Amino acid sequence: MKRYEQVAQALRRRLEHGFYQPGDRLPSIRDLCTEFAVSVSTVQTAYAELEAAGWVAARPKSGYFALARNRPGTLPAVSRPAQQPLEVSQWDQVLALVNEAQEQGCLLLGGGSPDTTADTLKALRRGLSRLYQRPSSEQDNYDSLLGSPLLRRQLARLAGASGTVLHEDDIVITSGCQEALSIAIRTLTRPGDVVAVDSPSFYGSMQTLKACGLKALELPTDPQTGISLEALELALEQWPIKAIQVTPTHNNPLGYTMPDARKRALVALAQRFDVAIVEDDVYGDLAYTAPRPRTIKSWDDDGRVLLCSGFSKTLIPSLRLGWIAPGRHRDQALHMKYVSTGATATVPQLAVAEFVEQGYYERHLRQVVRTYQRNLDRILGWIHALLPADCAVSRPQGGFVLWIELKGLDCVRLNERLRLRGVQVAPGVLFSASGKYRDCLRINITRADAELYAGLERMADEIVAMRGEQQASE
Amino acid sequence: MKRYEQVAQALRRRLEHGFYQPGDRLPSIRDLCTEFAVSVSTVQTAYAELEAAGWVAARPKSGYFALARNRPGTLPAVSRPAQQPLEVSQWDQVLALVNEAQEQGCLLLGGGSPDTTADTLKALRRGLSRLYQRPSSEQDNYDSLLGSPLLRRQLARLAGASGTVLHEDDIVITSGCQEALSIAIRTLTRPGDVVAVDSPSFYGSMQTLKACGLKALELPTDPQTGISLEALELALEQWPIKAIQVTPTHNNPLGYTMPDARKRALVALAQRFDVAIVEDDVYGDLAYTAPRPRTIKSWDDDGRVLLCSGFSKTLIPSLRLGWIAPGRHRDQALHMKYVSTGATATVPQLAVAEFVEQGYYERHLRQVVRTYQRNLDRILGWIHALLPADCAVSRPQGGFVLWIELKGLDCVRLNERLRLRGVQVAPGVLFSASGKYRDCLRINITRADAELYAGLERMADEIVAMRGEQQASE
Ligand SMILES: Cc1ncc(COP(=O)(O)O)c(C=O)c1O
Ligand SMILES: Cc1ncc(COP(=O)(O)O)c(C=O)c1O
Repeated sequence: MKRYEQVAQALRRRLEHGFYQPGDRLPSIRDLCTEFAVSVSTVQTAYAELEAAGWVAARPKSGYFALARNRPGTLPAVSRPAQQPLEVSQWDQVLALVNEAQEQGCLLLGGGSPDTTADTLKALRRGLSRLYQRPSSEQDNYDSLLGSPLLRRQLARLAGASGTVLHEDDIVITSGCQEALSIAIRTLTRPGDVVAVDSPSFYGSMQTLKACGLKALELPTDPQTGISLEALELALEQWPIKAIQVTPTHNNPLGYTMPDARKRALVALAQRFDVAIVEDDVYGDLAYTAPRPRTIKSWDDDGRVLLCSGFSKTLIPSLRLGWIAPGRHRDQALHMKYVSTGATATVPQLAVAEFVEQGYYERHLRQVVRTYQRNLDRILGWIHALLPADCAVSRPQGGFVLWIELKGLDCVRLNERLRLRGVQVAPGVLFSASGKYRDCLRINITRADAELYAGLERMADEIVAMRGEQQASE
Repeated sequence: MKRYEQVAQALRRRLEHGFYQPGDRLPSIRDLCTEFAVSVSTVQTAYAELEAAGWVAARPKSGYFALARNRPGTLPAVSRPAQQPLEVSQWDQVLALVNEAQEQGCLLLGGGSPDTTADTLKALRRGLSRLYQRPSSEQDNYDSLLGSPLLRRQLARLAGASGTVLHEDDIVITSGCQEALSIAIRTLTRPGDVVAVDSPSFYGSMQTLKACGLKALELPTDPQTGISLEALELALEQWPIKAIQVTPTHNNPLGYTMPDARKRALVALAQRFDVAIVEDDVYGDLAYTAPRPRTIKSWDDDGRVLLCSGFSKTLIPSLRLGWIAPGRHRDQALHMKYVSTGATATVPQLAVAEFVEQGYYERHLRQVVRTYQRNLDRILGWIHALLPADCAVSRPQGGFVLWIELKGLDCVRLNERLRLRGVQVAPGVLFSASGKYRDCLRINITRADAELYAGLERMADEIVAMRGEQQASE
């Protein structure tokens, strides 16, 4: 494939997947030269091709714009989970996934780890190494329960990027975002309560509901705009819901970001029914296009949103660094934090505070987001080339996971078969309280190399084989 | 004070505090020469003085032995807590203590941090520094849920020293012992349940009961032999107790170790009434005399003991490294671990595994235990010299905390007054569900320097002042 074709293909994927909506201005020629490391004439040829194919239109003096087209029908369906509170199952599946996390010689596409190979992390490693070397009784002893003021100050500053006004004392540092989520849920509920969730939804928060003896009310969720507010409103009228748990920005697993208007409407709804919102923003900083989206919390004027986040998806997951801004539930959340793990480890907090303060964090974000976006383009191309035409694929607007729907195919079984061939994915059932999304799976797109390509080939083989067996048995 | 007097005094303190029971053989002259860095004749003079005073007797060819004496009545009373299940209070007091943990310019005697200034920790700092420097995707990604097999292997090996047979897969690594305790409690109980506890008891586990909506049944506890088995048996007959939570070895705050026979009897009792035991062994490795005591778990033949421990009291608390051996409750405990914080941070595990494997851990223990024992002798001397004669003091057999009973004095108030003079202690009320032990306090003995001496002087002043005010108002 020629250079200009590569550029044209990449842009076409973005258009196909809705990164540019009709009327949006496309990147300038200069920006694309930088992004793809090609010449001006290569980009011009690519744009000419897209124009000829009816994807874009040039406007004098303002560059290229996206045209309205019939998009290929590749989006997963709006989910239709059972509309009643259920106990959460699927722990065995989740345990298998998290225990495989360190397996050698297997292509682990099921995990949720970011790319940690970027050079832009070097300063962080240096900082950690330096701080651990020095003996300092302040650093060795238990940190205060809120966490290091240095880190909380940086977090309060960073929050500005998502329109969120936080004071450093509004924030409690945690051992990963998982601890933040479980603190939030334990703060808000008692066993037997009902929590409304978007669906599919991150298995860690689902399992938290299970551990706390809660019921999950999974709500229909649009793969582009998130939880259905209409369904939520009906549910709030019908059930005694204690909290709404959502991942509205660069959702895991679907990749969507709820539009601002819907985020704001969600806050209004929560106010009207006087329920709390647990907002998981752990992927929030990984927007493909600047500026990053606003949080739901940014419209929270009465402290009912418990914002949970951390550095596992943006820096290094094994540092186990997260945080919660619990709003008006601060006292109770602090008690939950104390009994959960006491103080948080000190040095990782200090090292990350330094890294952020010195501007390395934002630089690193720009770097990895570029990688993820490039990987996405490539992998979408491979999926279209390799997987059945009837498969549907999510359109992430940030983050590094992709959701694939394989109409009618048992993806738990598919994963078992793939495991025998050295590939692991995350079956869709993990993301539901009741084992829905059995014909879906999630893959990690932090790499887009020959190995991943080979993994997709194997997946394609197994799909064909499974469909063949299915037909034979019918 | 002359050298021989110092040696004699140190030995007398140990005799007074029951480290040597009547009939026990005392250290050899050679050992004491090494311990105190004095000559043979100095030790001989010291022993002659003790013999003259009736503390010890010499036996030909076998050295010196402790004699039975009327010990000074300095032990705290056996606790008599309310014999009914209560909700746990005192959170405000605990929060104040843990938030002060990092306060500058204050003598923090209330905390639970070990001595981290020992040179024997250097290899650990080097290891941490080296591991964090290197980029390694295995190290960066989420660890498996159980934790690093390297560390679990070392823990299984170390367990031998306490007579505990553990396989590496019986162990789950946690973020500090606090996480282990809260996993244990959450695994065993549902809100409203009753847990029997020794009393006074570590505030972290008491607050865990509170957070889980449980009731604490505080049982009479002997300052030398621990929880009353007689009272426990009556309680088990009377109340629907779900678990027994104890710190039987180098107890916090009392310092005692339950005798082996009582540990074994506790297991038998738990079996008879079919309840689980949560055994907190976080100070277990800090025995003043080798070998370290056995765990309750070492007599557990049906997996009902959940053993909780970690490295916060032996290495560096801010590493947040703990573990649990949950026995037959492994599956449920693993689920609780997952929702609590997911995987544990990887590098601290690897660094500690290396440190233990290379023999540095045992060397470090010997070093710090020597320091604590020496500090204890000095501080006991200071307490006898400075504090009122009617005060009672615990007789720790390991660890680094001391419990002081100040008959009738309000130690919450004392602490407030001391805070104004730059000294902080842990008031006894923290260690009770219902605010008992108001006339007790706990101090940390990891230092025994001029500053600590000055702190005790200030404490003595305030006690005199408070008693004066009390009398004036009567
Ligand atoms: C949406 C979401 N929230 C929270 C987490 C947990 O984050 P952490 O690793 O910081 O506990 C994850 C990680 O998989 C996630 O995908
Ligand atoms: C008896 C006891 N158990 C557990 C803990 C908590 O240990 P960690 O700091 O490892 O969470 C402490 C610390 O104060 C303690 O004294």
